[in-house]
Amino acid sequence: MSEVQAASAPWGCDKGTIETSPDLLSGVSLPAAVVFEAPLSHNLEWMQRFATDHGARLAPHGKTTMTPALFQRQLDAGAWGITLATAPQCRAAFAHGVRHLLMANQVVGEANMAIVADLIEAGADFYCVVDSVANVRQLGHYFAARDLRLQVLIELGVEGGRCGCRDHDQVLALAELIDSAPALVLAGLEGYEGVVHGDNPETAIRRYAWHLVEVAQALDHDGLIESPTPLITASGSAWYDLVAGIFHEAHLGEHFVPVLRPGCYVVHDHGIYRQAQRGVLGRRPDLERGLLPALEVFAQVQSLPEPGLAIVALGKRDIGFDHLPEPLRRYREGGSAEHTLSVRGWKVARLMDQHAFLRLPEEATESRNSEVRVGDIVAFGASHPCLTFDKWRSIALVDDKLQVLAMMPTCF
Amino acid sequence: MSEVQAASAPWGCDKGTIETSPDLLSGVSLPAAVVFEAPLSHNLEWMQRFATDHGARLAPHGKTTMTPALFQRQLDAGAWGITLATAPQCRAAFAHGVRHLLMANQVVGEANMAIVADLIEAGADFYCVVDSVANVRQLGHYFAARDLRLQVLIELGVEGGRCGCRDHDQVLALAELIDSAPALVLAGLEGYEGVVHGDNPETAIRRYAWHLVEVAQALDHDGLIESPTPLITASGSAWYDLVAGIFHEAHLGEHFVPVLRPGCYVVHDHGIYRQAQRGVLGRRPDLERGLLPALEVFAQVQSLPEPGLAIVALGKRDIGFDHLPEPLRRYREGGSAEHTLSVRGWKVARLMDQHAFLRLPEEATESRNSEVRVGDIVAFGASHPCLTFDKWRSIALVDDKLQVLAMMPTCF
Repeated sequence: MSEVQAASAPWGCDKGTIETSPDLLSGVSLPAAVVFEAPLSHNLEWMQRFATDHGARLAPHGKTTMTPALFQRQLDAGAWGITLATAPQCRAAFAHGVRHLLMANQVVGEANMAIVADLIEAGADFYCVVDSVANVRQLGHYFAARDLRLQVLIELGVEGGRCGCRDHDQVLALAELIDSAPALVLAGLEGYEGVVHGDNPETAIRRYAWHLVEVAQALDHDGLIESPTPLITASGSAWYDLVAGIFHEAHLGEHFVPVLRPGCYVVHDHGIYRQAQRGVLGRRPDLERGLLPALEVFAQVQSLPEPGLAIVALGKRDIGFDHLPEPLRRYREGGSAEHTLSVRGWKVARLMDQHAFLRLPEEATESRNSEVRVGDIVAFGASHPCLTFDKWRSIALVDDKLQVLAMMPTCF
Repeated sequence: MSEVQAASAPWGCDKGTIETSPDLLSGVSLPAAVVFEAPLSHNLEWMQRFATDHGARLAPHGKTTMTPALFQRQLDAGAWGITLATAPQCRAAFAHGVRHLLMANQVVGEANMAIVADLIEAGADFYCVVDSVANVRQLGHYFAARDLRLQVLIELGVEGGRCGCRDHDQVLALAELIDSAPALVLAGLEGYEGVVHGDNPETAIRRYAWHLVEVAQALDHDGLIESPTPLITASGSAWYDLVAGIFHEAHLGEHFVPVLRPGCYVVHDHGIYRQAQRGVLGRRPDLERGLLPALEVFAQVQSLPEPGLAIVALGKRDIGFDHLPEPLRRYREGGSAEHTLSVRGWKVARLMDQHAFLRLPEEATESRNSEVRVGDIVAFGASHPCLTFDKWRSIALVDDKLQVLAMMPTCF
């Protein structure tokens, strides 16, 4: 790095931190993002067992949390590696002990290639995806000049989708080009079913997963895969059951290592992934209990300016807003975790950068004991988790008594 | 801070950083957020002159950038202090040398009060706003127990708005309560015209600004303001001309210090604030030239999977998305800043967490020299700036030749 690069983050950049005590209801600066230990443990174990039961390795998508302490928990639970979306994300994960890095994205630009080359030199088992002749040539030149070998997976996309080769001919042409590039190793096939659409998504995703299987088998048959332990990988956090089922059914384990890479499962959510999970459990009634939401954001009522309106010190800087946050519970500041107060009928009507407008069903007076007061603490659910985590430099891991067990730094 | 508090951000958390050279077109990991020096300098000088010409102090809202290097530039240009939205933001600003802190928000919660009390003990000239009896009592107790005096401004709101007292009687009752609290000093009046709405916003905002003036004068007349140099403050980045004009016209300078606190002006934008600026210049043709957009995000084409479609490595993690980002210019990787290529007709159709879908008017082939290639670098404009800054731990300050002059850490 150059001298104009700042060495490290300066003092004073933290919000949501422990100030006077680790009690979330009295000593922590709110708003704060918190992960509950019990559902976190459950989710870690649940998804690892799911992958193992389907003969697949788990490489959870780390972009969701970018929280090294959670990466470690995922590895401790049995994950093979961590999936990431960018070269700087891979660097952050490797710096915190992750050895197997699956970058489910193209490496573009010499500065990003330099980051990856440094990781490989430092001992990382690194994989990225390719989908174009141009990018394969760029990578071939760069890594040859660095005298390194880069493991690449061909990305298979769909018409109208995101990245990825659109047909078998493109895949074959790319495989042959990779084969001719001494610095590149074809190490398998990658896809992402989350961008597959159709009138019947389930049917379209099943078809896509089978297509991945067939293309992988064809590449293998043609002797174009160089790695002795090639990967076949797909699956986000909504359709992983279909992908894992088809990889399992196809007995891919004989020639390929199936790798699943859901990310949001680790903390689940209170919105789109809770809904997606209903789909999974509907398709797979054999799966017990399912995932549990573990991420919440705690914030305080700062003003009760009109009947039926509470302004909460929580904004777009603090929580994802693809869906508006959902009030879950309320506490008195300084109270205990057991004494929750109702938020029935409470609704976030609007979110600004630093403020939430909550509509309340009754008048916002302080005349009754359970009624809302300035200073009341509201727990919010979010959707989705990726865009909540990235608002925070550290996340509080808490127990059921709302005591902070650890502050977990993030690496966005 | 407790022992479970992480001491500092770990290594590996940076994206958009200098890797092999300070040249944005070859040595910087993209995507990267950049601020151009020339329009930045212009905006700093322009807004300071505007405030001075209207007899007002400038306390730019620091929540926009949370970038201490930009706070310093604002102070160097003549700003009196920095406005902030939360206690942790105030701590970050104070840690970087800002002495006059205007928290244009309620301080709620003992952990946040502890942060503020520590700042006052350390020598900060700190102001916050109050709008409720409950909060005034909480602050009065807390700061009395700490044996400190807290300067508060009464917030004046509007019916259907955000925080703030809704009528003169509430203001008076609050002023009397503050007067009776030994730990509190009534130091003026605060408002925010950005949440005032009406069929004719200009008329509604003028009326609100005059209302602020009248209430301030009434408090002064009743001898309820304790501070010898009380503040009257309002103004975001859209209607500052109306507020400043009315404060000036009212000759408030005789009894009050008018403080303006626009935030987004410092880098302006390519969306809502550009539009707002047209309104300002339409109302005030005497103001020359106006603000210039200074903030862009640079990202690279990673895939050209179908004719007319480019996938760019830029997502919701990298840029504000209240409005979809606007492609401004294109460069070849490794090229020079002078050689820009067209993005005419390019349009961001969709933004995911880490990817942008760009619709291109012509087929995305590489047959002609000017046509799009994998690796091409696209400069994007954003709206609005607050929600772009907070995606970055450091922002590159660049010159017209796209050379990085400094990496500016942020404190979100």
